[in-house]
Amino acid sequence: MDKSYNTLKAKLVGIHSHQPIVYMRKDCHICQSEGYSSQVKLKISNQSNQLIAELHVVDNEFFDIGYIGLNKLAFNMLDVTESDVISIAQASPISSMSEVRGKIYNQPFTDQGLKSLINDIKLGRLTDIDISSFITICAGGRLSADEIIWLTKAMVDSGQQMSWPTKVVVDKHCIGGIPGNRTTPIVVSIVGSCGLFMPKTSSRAITSPAGTADAMESITEVDISLNRMRTVLLEANACLVWGGSVNLSPADDILIRVEKALNIDSDGQLIASVLSKKIAAGSTHVLIDVPVGKTAKVRTREDAKNLCMLMMHVGNELGIKVKTMITNGSTPIGNGIGPTLEIKDVLSVLENASDAPNDLKVKSLHLSAKIIEMSGLAKKGNGLKVAVEALASGQALTKFKQICRLQGGSKKLKHATFTENILCETSGVVSEMDNRKIARLAKLAGAPDVKTAGLYLHKKTGDQVNIGDLLMTIHAESKGQVLYALDYYKQHKNMIQIGDLT
Amino acid sequence: MDKSYNTLKAKLVGIHSHQPIVYMRKDCHICQSEGYSSQVKLKISNQSNQLIAELHVVDNEFFDIGYIGLNKLAFNMLDVTESDVISIAQASPISSMSEVRGKIYNQPFTDQGLKSLINDIKLGRLTDIDISSFITICAGGRLSADEIIWLTKAMVDSGQQMSWPTKVVVDKHCIGGIPGNRTTPIVVSIVGSCGLFMPKTSSRAITSPAGTADAMESITEVDISLNRMRTVLLEANACLVWGGSVNLSPADDILIRVEKALNIDSDGQLIASVLSKKIAAGSTHVLIDVPVGKTAKVRTREDAKNLCMLMMHVGNELGIKVKTMITNGSTPIGNGIGPTLEIKDVLSVLENASDAPNDLKVKSLHLSAKIIEMSGLAKKGNGLKVAVEALASGQALTKFKQICRLQGGSKKLKHATFTENILCETSGVVSEMDNRKIARLAKLAGAPDVKTAGLYLHKKTGDQVNIGDLLMTIHAESKGQVLYALDYYKQHKNMIQIGDLT
Repeated sequence: MDKSYNTLKAKLVGIHSHQPIVYMRKDCHICQSEGYSSQVKLKISNQSNQLIAELHVVDNEFFDIGYIGLNKLAFNMLDVTESDVISIAQASPISSMSEVRGKIYNQPFTDQGLKSLINDIKLGRLTDIDISSFITICAGGRLSADEIIWLTKAMVDSGQQMSWPTKVVVDKHCIGGIPGNRTTPIVVSIVGSCGLFMPKTSSRAITSPAGTADAMESITEVDISLNRMRTVLLEANACLVWGGSVNLSPADDILIRVEKALNIDSDGQLIASVLSKKIAAGSTHVLIDVPVGKTAKVRTREDAKNLCMLMMHVGNELGIKVKTMITNGSTPIGNGIGPTLEIKDVLSVLENASDAPNDLKVKSLHLSAKIIEMSGLAKKGNGLKVAVEALASGQALTKFKQICRLQGGSKKLKHATFTENILCETSGVVSEMDNRKIARLAKLAGAPDVKTAGLYLHKKTGDQVNIGDLLMTIHAESKGQVLYALDYYKQHKNMIQIGDLT
Repeated sequence: MDKSYNTLKAKLVGIHSHQPIVYMRKDCHICQSEGYSSQVKLKISNQSNQLIAELHVVDNEFFDIGYIGLNKLAFNMLDVTESDVISIAQASPISSMSEVRGKIYNQPFTDQGLKSLINDIKLGRLTDIDISSFITICAGGRLSADEIIWLTKAMVDSGQQMSWPTKVVVDKHCIGGIPGNRTTPIVVSIVGSCGLFMPKTSSRAITSPAGTADAMESITEVDISLNRMRTVLLEANACLVWGGSVNLSPADDILIRVEKALNIDSDGQLIASVLSKKIAAGSTHVLIDVPVGKTAKVRTREDAKNLCMLMMHVGNELGIKVKTMITNGSTPIGNGIGPTLEIKDVLSVLENASDAPNDLKVKSLHLSAKIIEMSGLAKKGNGLKVAVEALASGQALTKFKQICRLQGGSKKLKHATFTENILCETSGVVSEMDNRKIARLAKLAGAPDVKTAGLYLHKKTGDQVNIGDLLMTIHAESKGQVLYALDYYKQHKNMIQIGDLT
């Protein structure tokens, strides 16, 4: 048989996808003789790399005969250049998927099995169909504590791991789901100013109106290299950067994408996702903020308690100290929602402004206090005093400014071009706010992609209101987005409920 | 806001996929303003239809600005022509997926919930990620008998249903996995010649070297319209056609595709799949052949018994009579493996040839006997006599010839261009044959796409062999395929085990 029978030349096809895809002509001799049809998994390789990719068969006019199309991801993963020779074979079944089948039939995962699975996910060998099955059979409380520990370990081992020249490395994480809740820059500034080492990497928003990285980006650089991050830490012992440039727990991003598509939150996967990134980042003491509320991610105190117990146990088994704090997740925190508006809140707290949002300030102080106590810097019960002092003295603000300067200087905060006020239509007391609908409203105004866009809440749960009072202001950079948001508000006025004044 | 803000013009993109996919330019104003990225689900609609499709973002050179690309499936499902105006919106979450999430958290499916799920699958509203999750959470014995009944009913209701002008409509089905096991044409000929009404629709091979439709196609037409099928039945009261042209249980093909990709066999899905097609085909009495063996689909007698009980129960609840027959699945049935070679075996049995494979003949007679008894044509215990008589008298052969003639005439059976004999290397008794490896060998020789390709087994389990005896013959239409097959054989000689003669 001709050795070149199974080879074609590479051609870049400009189709973006989260999975590696290859395109072969309908009349291609390999397709025809092997009986390949769309969605078959193929093993494609060049001299140095190999990859599992999904086949899409295309009409003949797409490219010349003798070529195989690769989408951008496949092209990059295989590291080829145009016209390189690519060998094509049917992919053998991925053996780690037999672990998933075993679990479906109620056999527990093994340490080694989870390691292979995570490695195969990282290397792009599992399709979305495979990953969906894996996520499904992990959800609904189907992972034991041991399985969660192994999964976390496998995720840590799959990526880069950082180490720091200090014994105590503190970190915090919020389970999320609460608009405005931008405590991280304040906490980093407070505990950093107390001398604690806090190499904070944050994510951008996935489904929310802002992530810490989006918010920080409105005032300084966050997309900085690992080397630059080390330089910042050497001088400031704290930083506030985007985690995306650091390759921690690479399988996790793939898992999260499929979880979002399924709209499944699996406790086991969540714990492994959060803790693997913290361990890989070299953290030794981690505080987890678990907001509970009927429109938060965690809906009941019971669920929160179970999640906290499990996180502390897994952290402990993997050699890091994990503490949790169950917080009020029934309503947004702070007034601004959207990157720039949230940083304005952060600054007003750090500057001890008289109109600084008190809920954001109090929550940040309590989180800081707990980290200060965990780290051993203050005894139990004394942390809050230390945190309050660091904030009131302006020492936290100085630390924040130092971090911004080292990360690339402070940008001037902008104001949105268009604003639209929404007024109260009844009198009474704000009795309830819907986190999900308020987040959606801010996103319709343009957040997080438009930094200045979002909402400013003039009233919060518990506030007394009269007809005609300013309830909130929509901030946007286009008239269209103002109208989108207004339209949504009109259809969902129940996102802010006003009760009787009794 | 401009009403045409969310519209683009349709453009056919010649990419074949089993899922509807739309392509939008990176610089498209809708992508940019809505923040759409690849793999977002979009609702696309024209005047009359709407569809959920997955977005793939493409480089700008793919098509002119103002257009949206639709792959062939999306183009056909939406029933558009080029340049039609298409409205685009983000798809709302598919509400039936909340049923799947509920099941993940151990809430049983509801009758109505399964109905919506199957309907959404049929209409292409669920992605492969969604379907994979659904299949996973149904597998591992997670469906109750009630859930299987509801699932079957939902699948029947989702497609075409046939009705026949007779009270008794018989059918058979084999769970599969046994190479060569081509009993259906023989059984249809025997019971058809006894006057029973048997509108047999069969599938093509999915992963095996031949399906009944592939085998029958080597001797007559099988791809015939429903009208033509009715004409055949009117005259012959039996037929042997391909089920693909009849739209029975359309969601099932989609489920099967994802099950194959996951390599999961779920009892509940299997039962719903088989029985829904039989009920939709108007069958009243169905016999299921369940081969058991360590390289068959069903591996233990225990599993087979559970499956049989469940099938009879579900059939009964849905108003049809289901009987099962647990058969020997430890070894191939018949000598030929591959479409033409299997039909040659079928003909030799029907012609009462002295060298007809006895295992195929005996098994076909027993299956026929059971159908004859189920239908009431013969009393329990007398069916075999009736079947033997129909075969021995030549009446079954006449029926087979009549069916072939009515379906479009008999084709002359061809012989493969290349054959290669494999000889015994030891003496003894054939003690074991591996169904899976033998099937793979036949497929490497070109079956089922190459009709004449496959294997001829000269020796079967229990046969005495001497060094140099003819063990099997590879049939192929290209030298390359002979070499592929030989190569595989050399690496897997244990597919036929020869034990001591004691």
